[in-house]
Amino acid sequence: MVTPAGQDASCCIPLTAAPITPDDATELSRKFKALADPTRVRLLSLVAAHEGGEACVCDITEPVGLSQPTVSHHLKILVETGLLAREQRGTWAFYSVVPGALGHLSDVLRDPTARETQGLVKG
Amino acid sequence: MVTPAGQDASCCIPLTAAPITPDDATELSRKFKALADPTRVRLLSLVAAHEGGEACVCDITEPVGLSQPTVSHHLKILVETGLLAREQRGTWAFYSVVPGALGHLSDVLRDPTARETQGLVKG
Repeated sequence: MVTPAGQDASCCIPLTAAPITPDDATELSRKFKALADPTRVRLLSLVAAHEGGEACVCDITEPVGLSQPTVSHHLKILVETGLLAREQRGTWAFYSVVPGALGHLSDVLRDPTARETQGLVKG
Repeated sequence: MVTPAGQDASCCIPLTAAPITPDDATELSRKFKALADPTRVRLLSLVAAHEGGEACVCDITEPVGLSQPTVSHHLKILVETGLLAREQRGTWAFYSVVPGALGHLSDVLRDPTARETQGLVKG
């Protein structure tokens, strides 16, 4: 990146990675909106905390203290936004966390230096 | 974790990590709410993409195509929710991503197996 002529260089820090595109930002903000609810954050965490990173509605209804229809409603929103995957096996539906659902932004929020290893474009 | 007697064992998967507490879920959902906006997702990504993981308002106003007061308003929300840190240096305010702002949930969303290395309690 070239610093525009005449701009106060003392305030300007160069880009070292490719920022997110507007379209990706819109898609990600939809996922964050789905997580702007304490119950859905707990459900996502509960699914991830089970063996193999997957759980059945029956495993996670009791810990959140809500009815199964309410839990199923929240899980549906997490599936629709691509944060959880759902697989029907006989009587039960199993839910698992979708890896990389938040793209490199989850790395950024984990550790700002993590993106250095993500192979993003250097400026 | 002990499977309750009489429950259909075929549907039950054991816990292998500690799920998030209700208080932490509430705190995290506030941060996700701050990110339920495409502009704020872009700003967070832009800050992280700059050298050293920090940027000045002057670095990120032009890329998002908004006025500096509007950008400052969005940055203030990201600071208030603990996603960005703000440091005043002379004329300019510099913003940096707060590492670990989403706790182990950002690891869960990055890779469901990542939590295995987080030292969380095994069930």
